[in-house]
Amino acid sequence: MVFQKIAILGMGFMGASLAASIRRFGSPDWEIRGFDPLEGRPAWAQSAGIVDGAFSSIKETVEGADLVVSAAPVDHIVGTILEAARHMKPGAILTDLGSTRERIETALCEGLPKGAIHAGSHPMAGSEKTGPEHCKDILFVGKWIFLTPGTSSHPALDALEGFWEKLGARVARLGAKEHDQIVATTSHLPHLAAFALANTLPRKWEEFVAGGFRDTTRIAGGAPEIWTPIFDTNRSCVLEALDQYMANLKEWRDALANPGTFEIDKLVKKANETRSRLM
Amino acid sequence: MVFQKIAILGMGFMGASLAASIRRFGSPDWEIRGFDPLEGRPAWAQSAGIVDGAFSSIKETVEGADLVVSAAPVDHIVGTILEAARHMKPGAILTDLGSTRERIETALCEGLPKGAIHAGSHPMAGSEKTGPEHCKDILFVGKWIFLTPGTSSHPALDALEGFWEKLGARVARLGAKEHDQIVATTSHLPHLAAFALANTLPRKWEEFVAGGFRDTTRIAGGAPEIWTPIFDTNRSCVLEALDQYMANLKEWRDALANPGTFEIDKLVKKANETRSRLM
Repeated sequence: MVFQKIAILGMGFMGASLAASIRRFGSPDWEIRGFDPLEGRPAWAQSAGIVDGAFSSIKETVEGADLVVSAAPVDHIVGTILEAARHMKPGAILTDLGSTRERIETALCEGLPKGAIHAGSHPMAGSEKTGPEHCKDILFVGKWIFLTPGTSSHPALDALEGFWEKLGARVARLGAKEHDQIVATTSHLPHLAAFALANTLPRKWEEFVAGGFRDTTRIAGGAPEIWTPIFDTNRSCVLEALDQYMANLKEWRDALANPGTFEIDKLVKKANETRSRLM
Repeated sequence: MVFQKIAILGMGFMGASLAASIRRFGSPDWEIRGFDPLEGRPAWAQSAGIVDGAFSSIKETVEGADLVVSAAPVDHIVGTILEAARHMKPGAILTDLGSTRERIETALCEGLPKGAIHAGSHPMAGSEKTGPEHCKDILFVGKWIFLTPGTSSHPALDALEGFWEKLGARVARLGAKEHDQIVATTSHLPHLAAFALANTLPRKWEEFVAGGFRDTTRIAGGAPEIWTPIFDTNRSCVLEALDQYMANLKEWRDALANPGTFEIDKLVKKANETRSRLM
């Protein structure tokens, strides 16, 4: 199944990057329709040539679409998907780019009408910048898309997999809970660590920071309207990851508080090994 | 005072970058002399054209030099400086690039012969890469050099300030203790946070990391021969910074463990503000 008419709900950085990617890698006859509650955004996307139609209501946007993608912040996804489902043509597929899965899928499982087909598409790609003007048409190239739920019999997953691969992405199918645990450690924890590190710097020393501090806190520029709901909807998994991180920091604390360099050396070398495998 | 003959003890990434910077920004008649206990390094630096002479002993290297710079790892600085002082011409200036100051300066204050002139030159610049082949001749451009001790009457500081400014750097004069506290927070803590974050990632999830985790752990590639002695020689200041960081993580923990998003939002926004001032 190939999607010919694609509705994107949300024209922030992610939604606009998706539109731009479809424009770049999709067939020329695919129709891309864009909506955002901030009026200027779909208009901007249309003038930038990344959507064919700019709309001011979800109802109009999803009319006749084969695929509807909610690119709203995590706390607005369920609302946009339920609204879209009321106006879509039968058999169309719903997906969303939400960074946390379990809460969204539980809510949709209860709220969606019978017959509606929804699956999650969480891209492991993003930016600390917000707004469509920063969009990138190669954002998904080589990046993971986590499709949830992982159940292989799900009717939407094959079509979504083909769609994302066309945009250059790699796809992994995961259960919602497993997904939320993985991203708590691989994505939400580094953000939390960066936010907390930025908050540890006294203002009087800000002028003295160098590349190390800057790189380690780059993602501390992440916007609250994106990150507060992500943390809010993945509390238990993030807490688990944070406790593991704090236990590792406690190991560092013990190594520093006791004489000898053997333990410090061991911790640095272990991190080096992980880091070299990430390159 | 202008240095005409400069001896660099240590031809790793930092020493070689210093040589390359002097070559690029210094006068053509300045003589750059390089030493490293690893024989191949000075020879490499000579063949790369960044030193005029490659030497296999400190004694030969410092002969007739106006300025001797130890670019050794923190735990080898005192040894190289004391050795250099035995062979230098009277009135020459000694400095080193050590990342921690109080321990080095206490040891040198006791160990250096009367009349020897030493001050610290810690560049807030570096790389997670090691070895002279990664050296950069613009490494110090726009970067801070912390000159210690901050006492304005110190006989070497004016000359060193002129030297570093010629290489494009900015100079701040700090007391050794004040210096160690600042870098514990601005440099050593982000490294520790990155090392601990790398150590929190289970191996099975390594394939799923994205840009956020990668950037936040870039400096977790820092070499143990550099970083173990830095932590070892700045334990009390790093512990203080780490305790502050852990207190901030505990605030996050409380915010996640309790209902409501107000506290999470507040912590994200505070980090955003710091981050925007660092840009």
